[in-house]
Amino acid sequence: MTDPLERRARLMGPNVPTFYDPPLHIVRGEGVWLWDARGRRYLDGYNNVPHVGHCHPHVVAAIARQAGVLNTHTRYMHDGVLDYIERLTGRMGHGLDQAIMVCTGSEAVDVALRMAQAATGARGLIATDNTYHGNTTAVAQLSTRRPPVGGYPDHVRLIPAPDARQPVGGTADGQAAAFGAEVARAAAELEAAGHGVAALIICPIFANEGLPCLPHGFLDPALTALRAAGGLVISDEIQPGFGRLGDVFWGHEALGFAPDIVTLGKSMGNGHPVAATVTRPEIMGAFREAFGYFNTFGGNPVSVAAADAVLDVIETEGLMENAARVGAYTLQRLNALRHPAIADIRGRGLAFAIELVGETGAPDPALANAITEEAKRRCVLINRIGRQMHILKIRPPLPFAPEHADRLADVLQSSFDTCPR
Amino acid sequence: MTDPLERRARLMGPNVPTFYDPPLHIVRGEGVWLWDARGRRYLDGYNNVPHVGHCHPHVVAAIARQAGVLNTHTRYMHDGVLDYIERLTGRMGHGLDQAIMVCTGSEAVDVALRMAQAATGARGLIATDNTYHGNTTAVAQLSTRRPPVGGYPDHVRLIPAPDARQPVGGTADGQAAAFGAEVARAAAELEAAGHGVAALIICPIFANEGLPCLPHGFLDPALTALRAAGGLVISDEIQPGFGRLGDVFWGHEALGFAPDIVTLGKSMGNGHPVAATVTRPEIMGAFREAFGYFNTFGGNPVSVAAADAVLDVIETEGLMENAARVGAYTLQRLNALRHPAIADIRGRGLAFAIELVGETGAPDPALANAITEEAKRRCVLINRIGRQMHILKIRPPLPFAPEHADRLADVLQSSFDTCPR
Repeated sequence: MTDPLERRARLMGPNVPTFYDPPLHIVRGEGVWLWDARGRRYLDGYNNVPHVGHCHPHVVAAIARQAGVLNTHTRYMHDGVLDYIERLTGRMGHGLDQAIMVCTGSEAVDVALRMAQAATGARGLIATDNTYHGNTTAVAQLSTRRPPVGGYPDHVRLIPAPDARQPVGGTADGQAAAFGAEVARAAAELEAAGHGVAALIICPIFANEGLPCLPHGFLDPALTALRAAGGLVISDEIQPGFGRLGDVFWGHEALGFAPDIVTLGKSMGNGHPVAATVTRPEIMGAFREAFGYFNTFGGNPVSVAAADAVLDVIETEGLMENAARVGAYTLQRLNALRHPAIADIRGRGLAFAIELVGETGAPDPALANAITEEAKRRCVLINRIGRQMHILKIRPPLPFAPEHADRLADVLQSSFDTCPR
Repeated sequence: MTDPLERRARLMGPNVPTFYDPPLHIVRGEGVWLWDARGRRYLDGYNNVPHVGHCHPHVVAAIARQAGVLNTHTRYMHDGVLDYIERLTGRMGHGLDQAIMVCTGSEAVDVALRMAQAATGARGLIATDNTYHGNTTAVAQLSTRRPPVGGYPDHVRLIPAPDARQPVGGTADGQAAAFGAEVARAAAELEAAGHGVAALIICPIFANEGLPCLPHGFLDPALTALRAAGGLVISDEIQPGFGRLGDVFWGHEALGFAPDIVTLGKSMGNGHPVAATVTRPEIMGAFREAFGYFNTFGGNPVSVAAADAVLDVIETEGLMENAARVGAYTLQRLNALRHPAIADIRGRGLAFAIELVGETGAPDPALANAITEEAKRRCVLINRIGRQMHILKIRPPLPFAPEHADRLADVLQSSFDTCPR
């Protein structure tokens, strides 16, 4: 019998990431639960792609039904894609009335960057220095988490990411102004280098940066600097979008700004490969003028049916309201966790971060790893994030109930009790 | 009641491509048939994505079944993705034993280019000057059919595409040597510019270039020049792969060469968004070493189930053999078409091209358009290709039967009869 990890390396190559050591062998999912090959059931406190719950029957039925009727491209007319874009953009505002449907968040961001470049006539891009927006050649150039093949190009500038405990500029109060000053500095550099400024791209909850839970208006100084340089702002809603934050449907509402371009993915089809780039007509027009974009699978009737069914479930099951209600209860339970390493606990809706530090106050990635593994042994799945991977990351599927929050919190406390600093 | 085209432009933006004028409003598909909103049934002589037939029940059932059991990412272990990669690479040879699964052909090519760059340490790319390999920022830089936003970068060199009637180098016999000389020239330019040569990427049937139907061994001089410059060859099998050519499963077998990297898409999941990049372990290792690639949806159990079901159907229904048998019969029927504009009819398996020229011998795109529209009015779907869009392009789903070939040929002859030169 071959070792599954050896077989994986033989067929997929080296360095293919896995979760947990040894990795989990998951065979079934339902709601907030996953089962491994030995029949053990895990509470899913981590996966944000099965947004309305693993294998939600309404989404599965929509995919199965449409796959049996028609699955073709958008060079033929089809009502499905138009009805969906109308429904989706109806939730956006800010004149964000048009969309290109694609298959992955990476494709959505790859398109968004070109939209900004086509609309501004400039090439320069600004992102944070601790982010990830996708894996295409162009999008990977923004990533410090997965540095690009061939190094960083000159038209990309990475600025210090907002941080909850080590704020840009030194103080939490001054962080918004300091972040704005970093945008201004990067914009000036891009201007001086002849690239000009096409866009600032951010995840509005800075999820990969460690979910710093910034205040409404945080981005205002940055946007003032950005607008002065002629740049557009791309709100990457791949993680915060579709109601996860509870009180708002989109992440940019949490920060209180009007994006020029919005990128969607992951949760949009509950795991079916569907994604989108949404923008205003004049930006879409500039892109469509500059480039004859066509995506073979993008906006096909089956992918649209999956995405539409996800909106159905969010609405009929009140999942955004659930994220607010159960999110608040979960945060309350997490705030009661006791361990000397816990330096900060924060959350918004059903997205949470718990920072762990050593006795000197320095990040403690080893403990974060130990807690993650210990919780897994106790059948609760969470993961880690942050520049030093010392922050516990919790973001369950939205049908998370109070009893799931109880189980999560109980297992985390037991895991903390097992892992002294 | 809103005009559907106006509604489309309002929601999707300007310049979104459609087929036919007015465009078809397709609502249902089955096998080689498509139905429009008025209930008219069309013979599909064009779509190569529904490879085993529109809405094939075995593929639909596989998707529905797996979507109801588990749909998650490859950071957990799952047998499905490993079983599929083993089955897929088992059909490749040439040491092409490892794969990365992604969601679109564009993603597959985007990865392939970086694999070549990581493995060679060089950056230069060579493609033909009349091709299309995908729509990401990096891949669009290879395309003359959809020129990139911001113009062509210096590390990309486009060489004259092989052509059936206007061969590179002037003679059909000398075209292989002339194409090889173009590769050598481009490689020397890339070396001189300091980029070095990472890869030559070709579709081995040059489908977008007009399906010139080149002989076995055609690529040998090009590969000698490429290897001398240290470059790798990427076989883009997005169009020829999975048995369409009838006598061979892959396009590179038709030309008789050993690719270093193979890209797959379109037909792979019969319309479900699944694609892959296949290569040798040392190239995969170099890429995985250089870049921590992870694709959220890539290789998920549902996408794998769709792709696996496609292989099932190809095998159990003998669709490659059918492509050979019915392809030969179809070519025989097409060869009997009579119209003074027909300059060349060629095909391999279930892929055909019919070149139309005016009295002077110059390409006649207007006639090709008229025939395409006339055939559509007679409920047979074909399309156009070629540098001047003067070549009829025919590539039906693989379950094409002799009676479908008869209908195709009869409708084409009637259409030709209706459209004098």
